Amino acid sequence: MTTPAVHVPRSPVTRKDVARYAGVSTAVVSYVVNGGPKRVAPATEAKVQDAIRVLGYRPNAAARALKLGSSETIGLVIPDNSNPFFSLLAHAVEDAAADRGFALVLTNSDGNVAKERRNIRNLAARQVDGVVLASVLFEPDLADLESAEIPSVLLNHGGESPGFNSVGVDLAAGAKIGVEHLIGHGHTNIALAMGTNVSNEFDGREQGWLQALAGAGLPEGPVVRGDFTREGGYAAGKRLVASASRPTAVFASSDMQAIGILRALHEAGISVPRDMALTSFDGSAEAEFSWPALTTVEQPVRAMAEAAVSALVGETKGSPPEHRLFPTKLRIRQSCGCP
Amino acid sequence: MTTPAVHVPRSPVTRKDVARYAGVSTAVVSYVVNGGPKRVAPATEAKVQDAIRVLGYRPNAAARALKLGSSETIGLVIPDNSNPFFSLLAHAVEDAAADRGFALVLTNSDGNVAKERRNIRNLAARQVDGVVLASVLFEPDLADLESAEIPSVLLNHGGESPGFNSVGVDLAAGAKIGVEHLIGHGHTNIALAMGTNVSNEFDGREQGWLQALAGAGLPEGPVVRGDFTREGGYAAGKRLVASASRPTAVFASSDMQAIGILRALHEAGISVPRDMALTSFDGSAEAEFSWPALTTVEQPVRAMAEAAVSALVGETKGSPPEHRLFPTKLRIRQSCGCP
Repeated sequence: MTTPAVHVPRSPVTRKDVARYAGVSTAVVSYVVNGGPKRVAPATEAKVQDAIRVLGYRPNAAARALKLGSSETIGLVIPDNSNPFFSLLAHAVEDAAADRGFALVLTNSDGNVAKERRNIRNLAARQVDGVVLASVLFEPDLADLESAEIPSVLLNHGGESPGFNSVGVDLAAGAKIGVEHLIGHGHTNIALAMGTNVSNEFDGREQGWLQALAGAGLPEGPVVRGDFTREGGYAAGKRLVASASRPTAVFASSDMQAIGILRALHEAGISVPRDMALTSFDGSAEAEFSWPALTTVEQPVRAMAEAAVSALVGETKGSPPEHRLFPTKLRIRQSCGCP
Repeated sequence: MTTPAVHVPRSPVTRKDVARYAGVSTAVVSYVVNGGPKRVAPATEAKVQDAIRVLGYRPNAAARALKLGSSETIGLVIPDNSNPFFSLLAHAVEDAAADRGFALVLTNSDGNVAKERRNIRNLAARQVDGVVLASVLFEPDLADLESAEIPSVLLNHGGESPGFNSVGVDLAAGAKIGVEHLIGHGHTNIALAMGTNVSNEFDGREQGWLQALAGAGLPEGPVVRGDFTREGGYAAGKRLVASASRPTAVFASSDMQAIGILRALHEAGISVPRDMALTSFDGSAEAEFSWPALTTVEQPVRAMAEAAVSALVGETKGSPPEHRLFPTKLRIRQSCGCP
């Protein structure tokens, strides 16, 4: 191969050139390059790939973003993807975004307000097309997104925050079902293991526990508070075991806490559900494989992720901010006392 | 407020303007806008934020990317972040990238070769600065990245694939420790629950199991194969329970499989570790909270993520592709028979 003596710059190969060479529309070239949003038949895709290779086409995402005023990305802020509930949520948001041609920039706030704010600012600077925020706060500071005119939606949001788009489940109604199920098994001393939020909002799950007890004319059982984690649940479980009026049943505000409580009960030789029954909240995969398997109030993660992304990408454009509330469902397994 | 009759376009506010107004360097403005890589004192940050607000500065990520030839993002492809090992890995890669000023675009391949290829192509089209790939294949197709001149590194990679940058643990050495620990507890009939890969490579964990048995002069115990998942482990556990020469110990190639095996053993009334001992591989958080807690061969996830991102962002630029192998460590808990 000889090297030409003079390098003649040629105009860059465009999507149009690729489309002409491959004998397809420019839209089809886009679908192949972006892996969607529409599917392309394998034979057509092969032709387009061939054209890209022969012509040396290099799609320029940055140039495209500048032209479209869109980076075709959605930012997600979650407290911690090592909590399987949030990793499931992240996966669902990724899929919902990909279906619409958007990639997902994932950031963990590690349950830290300052880090959450930093992540939001960083996403705003990157000009993502929207931000899905599972905030540690009830009314997070979205000024950076607003001044950059980037739409946002609060996901996993317990209540209505005026002026915010939000998606969540009815925490109180869900918790009520979980506690009522324990009441149905004949329990009269039912504890609450409540996760502590950064914000001081009265959590719907605590309301639901109270409502169920009041509805059945039962006294309030002991309340143990701690982190929404396995470790937090383990500490809560040890306190329940040592409690003077030891409950015969516990409602935990998250699966992670319930997993930790189970460990404390096993260590103390307390049989679940015989000596202490347990229901929890979230419906993560880990709950299915604990011993015994957890009866848990399941959140409809896929539907929530779909609603959040749909609100972001303008499918609900022009509508005023709204709080979309999804119903939960009790997944009955063995920790409650069911066979 | 009056609206001017004629709209006079003004030249956009630049980072320099912000720096001058706030009395700081342009680098400091960058750190504030990007949330790093260097920290900025809160008082200085407040001054910069104030300047941004007053001047109406809007950093333009797309323009910057075009100028720098960098989108300041790193792409990550993992099989499934609902496996807590991969969610931990994703979190570690995100942190390592953020420390260097890069955001993370996360994609799940769902253990599917076609989806993995689509994700890689999509990341190439977006001109990410590099791709970290936890592939389902031993020698994945990186042609799309190569033609776009995007560096890549294989993460969670069991062996050396010539021509590829890769980071992984010594699977055989790790598995050998896990099996030898069971031998140390006096077991002579030790099964292997092996996860099945898409690729046909002989997995290092199987080699390590064989080496440990051979080293102790023990016969090969039963081998059950299935998915690297809780469900796969559950099915494997049921087969072990039904096995004619039921083993007294099992080495599982992942924590997820071990979690599934535990459920099968609990259901069959087989006491762990008394009737059947168990060690596994990965060292995920879920392993610490199973019942009994799993003795597991821990992978140094943070160190591996650091090495992968460092290789990508050019800190090892100019070096030939290399396979970085990290040592594992046995985390002793109770499933093995230790007190």
